[in-house]
Amino acid sequence: MRRPTIKDVAERAKVSLKTVSRVINNEPSVMQATRARVLHAIDELDYEPDPSARSLRSATPYVIGLVYDNPNPYHIIGVQNGVLAACRETGFDLQIHPCDSSSPLLADELGEWARRSRLAGLVLTAPMSESTELVEALVARGVKLVRIIAATEDPKDGHPCVFVNDRDAAYEITEHLVQLGHQRIGFLWGGAAHRSSQERYQGYEDALKDYGITLDKHLVVPGDYTFDDGFRGARRLLALREPPTAIFGSNDEIAAGVLAAAKSAGVDVPFELSIAGFEDSPVSKQSWPALTTAKQATEEIARHAARLLASHLRQDAYDEHPLAMHNQGFVPQLVVRGSTAPLRARGGSGGGSESRVEQAKK
Amino acid sequence: MRRPTIKDVAERAKVSLKTVSRVINNEPSVMQATRARVLHAIDELDYEPDPSARSLRSATPYVIGLVYDNPNPYHIIGVQNGVLAACRETGFDLQIHPCDSSSPLLADELGEWARRSRLAGLVLTAPMSESTELVEALVARGVKLVRIIAATEDPKDGHPCVFVNDRDAAYEITEHLVQLGHQRIGFLWGGAAHRSSQERYQGYEDALKDYGITLDKHLVVPGDYTFDDGFRGARRLLALREPPTAIFGSNDEIAAGVLAAAKSAGVDVPFELSIAGFEDSPVSKQSWPALTTAKQATEEIARHAARLLASHLRQDAYDEHPLAMHNQGFVPQLVVRGSTAPLRARGGSGGGSESRVEQAKK
Repeated sequence: MRRPTIKDVAERAKVSLKTVSRVINNEPSVMQATRARVLHAIDELDYEPDPSARSLRSATPYVIGLVYDNPNPYHIIGVQNGVLAACRETGFDLQIHPCDSSSPLLADELGEWARRSRLAGLVLTAPMSESTELVEALVARGVKLVRIIAATEDPKDGHPCVFVNDRDAAYEITEHLVQLGHQRIGFLWGGAAHRSSQERYQGYEDALKDYGITLDKHLVVPGDYTFDDGFRGARRLLALREPPTAIFGSNDEIAAGVLAAAKSAGVDVPFELSIAGFEDSPVSKQSWPALTTAKQATEEIARHAARLLASHLRQDAYDEHPLAMHNQGFVPQLVVRGSTAPLRARGGSGGGSESRVEQAKK
Repeated sequence: MRRPTIKDVAERAKVSLKTVSRVINNEPSVMQATRARVLHAIDELDYEPDPSARSLRSATPYVIGLVYDNPNPYHIIGVQNGVLAACRETGFDLQIHPCDSSSPLLADELGEWARRSRLAGLVLTAPMSESTELVEALVARGVKLVRIIAATEDPKDGHPCVFVNDRDAAYEITEHLVQLGHQRIGFLWGGAAHRSSQERYQGYEDALKDYGITLDKHLVVPGDYTFDDGFRGARRLLALREPPTAIFGSNDEIAAGVLAAAKSAGVDVPFELSIAGFEDSPVSKQSWPALTTAKQATEEIARHAARLLASHLRQDAYDEHPLAMHNQGFVPQLVVRGSTAPLRARGGSGGGSESRVEQAKK
């Protein structure tokens, strides 16, 4: 019996010779399913690549790292799924590394991780991606990286990034509430360390200003990107002598917390209180009523970031998927659902609002 | 100026000599925060380990892999966080690999991944962990692994595992519903490929039998571990001529879907319909009313699995944390919340249930 050749492998796996060669050389730009099929064919045929190819086979693996510090499981999974999709396209594998964004030793920790695990590069999410100091410390350590950041435009600072225009989307949400007749609109912050949270606040402030509504600082509550902070913040707002008629939570988890607080206080949503979130996570669709929000294409954004990294790491990563590999901007889009409605005039001397106060104070 | 020694590093980093040596040799069983502190001290002092230590420094990194095929973000994040906690204890890094559990080439795919990325071992979650064929194919390829499985007892089949007794917990949930007076109890399956789903069904069936309640097959609906399948399944059950008075969803996402379906059909929870879930994920606490469920310590379970793997990979992994590294069982515990209540006698000729049917059929 003759020794099997690379051609036999290609025929059996129904792929091109080039693809078999790429798999043997452990190159990216082979889909993992195709890779598995080729390896299966190699196994079945007992094919032995020639020695020079074999030496290539033991080359450094292509692994990238994802760094996050975010309390929101749906957001993390969305980002992971996007990065993993790009990994599957290019043959990279993925390590994940949650971290404490406030650690003074973070650059050491991440640099050491990248060295120890021989990572080809990192995808940095916020707030790490938004620290110039950290980014420069990593670059100085020879770490290649791409950032996902909140910004109205490309910072053009020499480091690759994907930027999300949270400000304009938050403006649109606030405008939607104003156009429904709301004047007293509460705002619940996400983590202040995240620029997205600052940008969303800025969009809220800008919209109020443009519509001639004076900002009441009692309606603005600090907090983190969590359900619990949304719940707490809403209870505080609903207990005000003059509570807001609408609340804009900086993400969907916060807005879901607002919804629970409203229900627990006997406040009818949307007829006594309109609620809007941000991100269009599954939470926003699964709430009752479903939440008005800004659709942020989390998975697409993360996928583009990882593609950008792959194309910076290997010029040939996308030669079969010719895509413009440049910094790219995304603008989340307003999605109107059942949680927002026109302001209804309050009847009487505010008895309804008083009883709401009592319940919220419980 | 004299050359800095390993002792200087230890003093500056406030750790033992042994710890510095471990960091230099890239051994596990050093917490990542400690590791970072030591590396920072090495950097500041410009300390150069001697050449023999340096050669060790470039040893193979300690990386383990987590394999999953689960549609539930909260569950995945819980598992990841548990595995990552054990990684931080032992100095391992983590790669993640979502997969298609039904792929016939899965053993090739995972084996090739482990080889390519030089993984020390894998944590397999269900349903992959529950396929004897896959487990044996991986072991035959030299892959070290630990499994998280659903089982009432340790299978003692020679492969390390953590087992979760879903059956007894599901029995307890069903018993709770029966004791509230419910006789018509719907059951919504999670993915049939997951043994957990079969075990939960078995617990439901056993409890009904023990309480002398005849199982009505119309009350049992197949589906996956998702909100959408919970919603669809509940609408089907609520549209029955004689709908159930309680529904047991195989996880919290399913139960949240049931809750949304009930609300959309104008059915009051818990007074017209009791709902129970499984897992005690954040979803169960954030629903309104909050969901009765079985508290499954997802993070602890995954953490124990990763500790078990680490201790199999390196005998010294837990020499500073002496723990009994054996297969371990977990039993989820009943948590009663607002979504379940005593059965209320139906007034009149069933008009209420008819109007419910109309709305659900809409």
